[in-house]
Amino acid sequence: MTSEKDKPDLYWLFSPRTIAVVGATKNISKVGGQVINNLRIGGYKGKVFPIHPKHDKIFGWTVHKSVKNVSEPLDLVVSVIPNHKTAPIVEECVEIGAKFVQIITAGFQEIASFEPEAMKYQDEITKSLKRAKGTTRIIGPNCMGITSTGSNLNAMMGFLPLAKSLDGFNISITSQSGTWTWNVVNFANSHGIGIANAISNGNELDLTFEDFIEYFGFHCERTNAIVGFLEGFRNSQKIKKIAAEISEKKPIIILKGGKTKSGARSASSHTGSIAGSYAIFKSFCKQAGIIEAEDSSDLIDLARAAKIFHPNKFPRGNRVTIFTGGGGAGVILSDILENHGLQLAKLEKETIEKLSEILPPHWPHGNPVDSVGSMEVWMQLKKIMKIISQDNNTDIIMTSIPTMGAAQDDIPEPMKKWAKRVMGIEEINRDVLVSFDRNIAKDIIRILRKTDKLLVFPTSHYNSEGHYEYEIFTKLFENGVLVVSNAVDGSRIIKKMLAYKEFLKKRRNK
Amino acid sequence: MTSEKDKPDLYWLFSPRTIAVVGATKNISKVGGQVINNLRIGGYKGKVFPIHPKHDKIFGWTVHKSVKNVSEPLDLVVSVIPNHKTAPIVEECVEIGAKFVQIITAGFQEIASFEPEAMKYQDEITKSLKRAKGTTRIIGPNCMGITSTGSNLNAMMGFLPLAKSLDGFNISITSQSGTWTWNVVNFANSHGIGIANAISNGNELDLTFEDFIEYFGFHCERTNAIVGFLEGFRNSQKIKKIAAEISEKKPIIILKGGKTKSGARSASSHTGSIAGSYAIFKSFCKQAGIIEAEDSSDLIDLARAAKIFHPNKFPRGNRVTIFTGGGGAGVILSDILENHGLQLAKLEKETIEKLSEILPPHWPHGNPVDSVGSMEVWMQLKKIMKIISQDNNTDIIMTSIPTMGAAQDDIPEPMKKWAKRVMGIEEINRDVLVSFDRNIAKDIIRILRKTDKLLVFPTSHYNSEGHYEYEIFTKLFENGVLVVSNAVDGSRIIKKMLAYKEFLKKRRNK
Repeated sequence: MTSEKDKPDLYWLFSPRTIAVVGATKNISKVGGQVINNLRIGGYKGKVFPIHPKHDKIFGWTVHKSVKNVSEPLDLVVSVIPNHKTAPIVEECVEIGAKFVQIITAGFQEIASFEPEAMKYQDEITKSLKRAKGTTRIIGPNCMGITSTGSNLNAMMGFLPLAKSLDGFNISITSQSGTWTWNVVNFANSHGIGIANAISNGNELDLTFEDFIEYFGFHCERTNAIVGFLEGFRNSQKIKKIAAEISEKKPIIILKGGKTKSGARSASSHTGSIAGSYAIFKSFCKQAGIIEAEDSSDLIDLARAAKIFHPNKFPRGNRVTIFTGGGGAGVILSDILENHGLQLAKLEKETIEKLSEILPPHWPHGNPVDSVGSMEVWMQLKKIMKIISQDNNTDIIMTSIPTMGAAQDDIPEPMKKWAKRVMGIEEINRDVLVSFDRNIAKDIIRILRKTDKLLVFPTSHYNSEGHYEYEIFTKLFENGVLVVSNAVDGSRIIKKMLAYKEFLKKRRNK
Repeated sequence: MTSEKDKPDLYWLFSPRTIAVVGATKNISKVGGQVINNLRIGGYKGKVFPIHPKHDKIFGWTVHKSVKNVSEPLDLVVSVIPNHKTAPIVEECVEIGAKFVQIITAGFQEIASFEPEAMKYQDEITKSLKRAKGTTRIIGPNCMGITSTGSNLNAMMGFLPLAKSLDGFNISITSQSGTWTWNVVNFANSHGIGIANAISNGNELDLTFEDFIEYFGFHCERTNAIVGFLEGFRNSQKIKKIAAEISEKKPIIILKGGKTKSGARSASSHTGSIAGSYAIFKSFCKQAGIIEAEDSSDLIDLARAAKIFHPNKFPRGNRVTIFTGGGGAGVILSDILENHGLQLAKLEKETIEKLSEILPPHWPHGNPVDSVGSMEVWMQLKKIMKIISQDNNTDIIMTSIPTMGAAQDDIPEPMKKWAKRVMGIEEINRDVLVSFDRNIAKDIIRILRKTDKLLVFPTSHYNSEGHYEYEIFTKLFENGVLVVSNAVDGSRIIKKMLAYKEFLKKRRNK
């Protein structure tokens, strides 16, 4: 058996052998019912001890009246009982030496401005915590719980199935917002990102954002990238000490809330945190190699990029070749690239010559490569992509593959005729177009395997889960294509990831 | 019959009584086949004269060997024959006094840098044009055609069905990019925006962006907003003279290409246009009340906002109340609002009291209104929206209605149980949730009808055409809800529209 001493401090929080749920119930409209039910359906690998004064059994687990009655040592106690009843439970946990108490219950410091009693409840917990002298650590209060796919642990409130982990790349999440944690777990999983751990920190009475970053960064081998929602650091000393060293091992991607006065005010009534100066935060991120996300969807995009570039498969440089179906799009994309510090690649002479054999004579003979509205280019897409992918002055290719998403139920009559004539398809219909798109995706994947170039693919159907395009985009992403909502998002992500690459280069050359 | 003299110059371009297509063919892989076929399936109301040396009839229309052989006066000639053969056709059109010639063919000034002959072809056309002394006007060359829903005119290349116009609000499009025009017509129509006219201007040898703005602004009553893609003004004098006066009548929304050096270079090989200084453009827009779009999707969002606010139904002010399912989202939204010059509304005391009767005791008692993760709030959504909509300090409500988009095929078991207990639904399934969402949408629409508040609804499923949510979002939009992809987009749009409102106020108070 593993010796407890070999394990880092937070190991038993994310891989608990035993869990007690104080306030457990069969009633899943209540938080105590949700947590215990989530543990059950998640297939949690450890032992569960529901704590309730009246119940007998819940989902087959024997109910105890108090944590004191549990005969085994408790790694984690999850408490969901009302705010004014919480402190005595914490005291009991300290007494029996439970390793961690996660207080999901809200109604403490964060509501003290209109409910002064609430501060007292929190202060009582602090007293117990002090008596514990580190033998019992607290998460929360005012949070949503914890998830760890390594032990099938889903001790979250709400109705979220156990998060999925994926082979090869998983993120760990720490967040000062509960619902945000929930949403990001969901969003990450549905966008091809696996979860190692997720923890909602709430008011951070004891364990903080910084502690979880430290654990994920140094001690959790299942974590390939760290993702966080932060209102304000509570332990600036610690984060300053560890951030750059962790960034060197794995990317830290943070979304900061409370950047403005309004945001900071909202943060204070949310988890009672002090947002601090945004300018200082920004400059700290730069120094420490932390990648800042603009919003939740940017954050997921950055995590997707981190997955594609893992390990150390960053684009060689910032020279982008655009392939588009029209000149206007080329002009717009050129602006977007330059505004994000990227540059238009100067195509090799040979590339231009080869493209000229395929494209209409009046194509612009340069980058952006523009098919000048020709629909026959559909048929030549593979060749065009291949030629561009062999250009030595190109690091990145950006294209809205013009066929993708064209398949509709109702295909216009002239397009049917055209398909017959040009594509040689006897009867064009949705299925034919879908399989056409699928084949293009396969071709592109095959072409990309042979190059070190990054393909960026903006599509407004990025979030169309359930559609056939979504399935293709997922396949493309799994094969290293950076599928994004639009070119602005794509450019911003590349800019940030190239800055992170620079950070790594400097650190490693030290 | 209408006297020609009563009509503004460009009237017969957008409402031609007769059209000749030079280079018409039955082969719809060719541009000449596409244009004539589009005229046919669009149900064009005027007379069509295909011009071809060999054919006899095309789609039932008698073919003439030359425009000279057509016995009726021609309002519009569309030419699709190769670049080097174009000038003689233009000369013929001038001779017979055709009112307008639209040259779709590319391969003129825009390729002169690698194909010097091309400039000569364009110069020859210029000579004919000069001889015409205004009796014949030219559109293009190097463009995609023209659409006008008033006369069922679809003289575009490609496979685009006739655009739809909608009762009450239609946009007219002028664009220096062809495929962009095509895409925006498509995108606008699928996002609830009707089309009055769309014209692709190409190299703007004669008629320019400014001429079309002038026509749509002063003379086309079917146009409620003007939308344009601009690389560079060719007639700055004209636009300076007319822009503010038109902005006062209807919004002008412009997407500018060639803002950066890379973009300007791409523009020059696209339509040969000179992009000019972006700083000057920006300050001109501000003065003239022109609304600048960041990209094509921003442009459509702005057009959607223009439709919602038409006529003069702008939000009263910039005070926003946020309703969210979690505090983190509230913090993030607060930042976004402030970064776009909007402010968090200070809720009336009465509003807070009423909300406290519904929300859990530890809700933040202020704005952002946060249901603190409670799922029971689903059931109270209507009441919450009603209370907020009656708050006198609120001009705008922003919410991601937490139920929307929740309906999935595979509903988790615990949620089924919960629905039974809390919602009283015996067997919850996808259909039940869909109809639940539909009813919420209906409730919201009913509530909004009684207030002058704007509801902004960010959802990542905004582009999920075909999904049930999309249908609901469309219904919401048609009833005045500003449905957007995300809160950043929503805030940016409101900021721009409020600036436009300010412009109108100043102009009208003059």
